[in-house]
Amino acid sequence: MGLTVPFKQVDVFTEVPFKGNPIAVINFLDIDESEVTQEQLQAIAIWTNLSETSFLFKPSDEKYDYKLRIFTSLSELPFAGHPTIGSCKAFLEFTQNTTATSLVQECRAGAIPLTVNEGLISFKAALFDFEGISDEVITGYEQSLGLKFIVAPALLRTGPNWVVALVEDAETCFNANPNFTMLTEQTKQNKHCGVILAGVKKNASIKNSYEMRAFSPLDKVDEDPVCGSGSVALARYLQELYKFEETTKITISQGGRLGRDGHIVASIIKETDGSTSYHVAGHAITVVNGKITL
Amino acid sequence: MGLTVPFKQVDVFTEVPFKGNPIAVINFLDIDESEVTQEQLQAIAIWTNLSETSFLFKPSDEKYDYKLRIFTSLSELPFAGHPTIGSCKAFLEFTQNTTATSLVQECRAGAIPLTVNEGLISFKAALFDFEGISDEVITGYEQSLGLKFIVAPALLRTGPNWVVALVEDAETCFNANPNFTMLTEQTKQNKHCGVILAGVKKNASIKNSYEMRAFSPLDKVDEDPVCGSGSVALARYLQELYKFEETTKITISQGGRLGRDGHIVASIIKETDGSTSYHVAGHAITVVNGKITL
Repeated sequence: MGLTVPFKQVDVFTEVPFKGNPIAVINFLDIDESEVTQEQLQAIAIWTNLSETSFLFKPSDEKYDYKLRIFTSLSELPFAGHPTIGSCKAFLEFTQNTTATSLVQECRAGAIPLTVNEGLISFKAALFDFEGISDEVITGYEQSLGLKFIVAPALLRTGPNWVVALVEDAETCFNANPNFTMLTEQTKQNKHCGVILAGVKKNASIKNSYEMRAFSPLDKVDEDPVCGSGSVALARYLQELYKFEETTKITISQGGRLGRDGHIVASIIKETDGSTSYHVAGHAITVVNGKITL
Repeated sequence: MGLTVPFKQVDVFTEVPFKGNPIAVINFLDIDESEVTQEQLQAIAIWTNLSETSFLFKPSDEKYDYKLRIFTSLSELPFAGHPTIGSCKAFLEFTQNTTATSLVQECRAGAIPLTVNEGLISFKAALFDFEGISDEVITGYEQSLGLKFIVAPALLRTGPNWVVALVEDAETCFNANPNFTMLTEQTKQNKHCGVILAGVKKNASIKNSYEMRAFSPLDKVDEDPVCGSGSVALARYLQELYKFEETTKITISQGGRLGRDGHIVASIIKETDGSTSYHVAGHAITVVNGKITL
C-alpha cells in the first residue's frame, strides 16, 4: 500500500480522443509481480469501472517484451483485443521506445506477436476456435436481437466466447436494438460472453467492409464500444463462410451507436506454410497520462 | 482539440484507495469555459465510464472559489454529492491550497458552502425537498426490492430524485437483492433516479448509525457504491421522521456489497436562526494524478 506507479488511460481503435474504447494500463514493470495480489488487481479493475484494466509486468522470459494481465470488473481474462493494443501503445510510451516494429506479449493465452507500423499496432490472435451452435440457441438470439441472421451463427473462442452472427447489411446491424434482459439470460444459460453482430457495407469503396457491434450484457457492459477479440471472431467466422484463398483484409467500423467512431482492420493471412492466421490492427492514443497510488 | 489539462481521479468517502466512489476531475481553471462545448464534456463523461465526471472552471463571480459542472454518462446534473467532495479535494490539490477551511462551490444548484477540517470535506446541501409518494408506488418498490419498508418512504429531491426507504436493520439493507429489471421499469415510470435503502445498526456504538445502499439502475449503474446526495436524502428523511430538535449526526456505511468500504457523516444542523440545514462530510484521496488530452 502507498505504492505509486505510472498510469495511462489509452483510447483504442481511434486516433481521436474519446472516439475509441478506453483501457486503463498500470505500469508494474519496475516491481516484482509478487508485490501485488490478485485481489488488489481485481479491486483496481472494479474501481476504474472500464470494461478492462490491464497490468504490465516484467516478462517471465526474455523472449517476451512484457507480460500483460487483463481484468474485467468480474475476473481475469486469458486475452482481450483492445487491452492488448492499448497496453502495447502504453508500453512503448512508458519505455520511450519509438523504434520497435515487432514485440511479443506474454499473457495467459500464450505468446502474442505484435507489430507496429506507422502507429498502427497489430496483434496475431492466439485463440480462434470455431464451433457450431444449435438451431434452438440461434432462434433464441434472433428473438433477443429482434432480427434474422442471414446464415447460421457460430461460437468463436477468441479469449471471450463470442457468438458471431451476420445480418443483411451494415444499416441493419447499426439499427439493432437488443432486448438486453433476454440477451443477458440467454448468454448466461449458454455460457457465451455475448454476441458479435455484423453487416457488410454494400456500397463501401473497400470490399469486405463491415459495421460491427458487440453485445455483452453479462459483463455489466451492455455494448462494448470497439472490440478487438470480437473482430478476430468475425474474421475467423468469415473465413469459415467464404473460404478466402488469399490474404484478405476486413475493415470494421464500430461504436457509432455509442457516440464512438472505432476503426479496426482484421486480416486473414495465408502464411507461407499453408496455415491461416488472424491479425487485428488499430491505432491507439493516450488520453490520460500520470500516476496511480495503490 | 489537442488541449492538455490537469486530471485527477479521486476516491471519495474513503481514506483507502479503491474503497470509495471514484470521480474523474478535469481542471479547466486555466481556460475559458467557452473553449469547450457541452458535447465535449458529455463525450468525456461517457468515455471515463464513471458514474460522474466533473469539470472545474473559473467561477462567474469572486464570491465563489470555483465553478463545478457535473456530468453522468447521460446528462449534466445540477448537483451531486461525491463529485462535490472529490472535486473540492482535487481543487485544493490543483491550487496547492493546504490552508483553506471554507470554500464556496458554484454549480447549477446554486452556491454550495464547503468546509475542510483535518482532511474531512463537508458540503451544505442546497436541495432537500421532501415529498410523499403514493401507496401504489411504494408497493411496487417493495416488490422490486423484495422486502418490506418499516415506514412510508418519501421522495427527496437532493439533485437526483431519490426515494428513501427504511428497512428493519442494517443486515436487511446489506442483504437486499433487488430485481433490477423491475426497478429500472419502476424508476423510469415514476421519474425517480433510484432508491436509497437504509437500515439502522442496532448494536452500533454510535447512535444514528446506518447501513445504506443506493440503487439507480436507470443511470447505467445498478448500484452506486457510496452516495453523497443519497445521504442528504436520508438525513432529511430521518429529520421528517424523528423531528430531531438538536443538531444530530448520522454516520453511514456504504458499499460493502460492492467490495467498497465507504464512510459518510450526514449532519442535521440546527442553525441559530431556527432553520435546519443538511451537511455531508467525507474523506477523499487522489488515486490517479496526471493530465488528460482532449
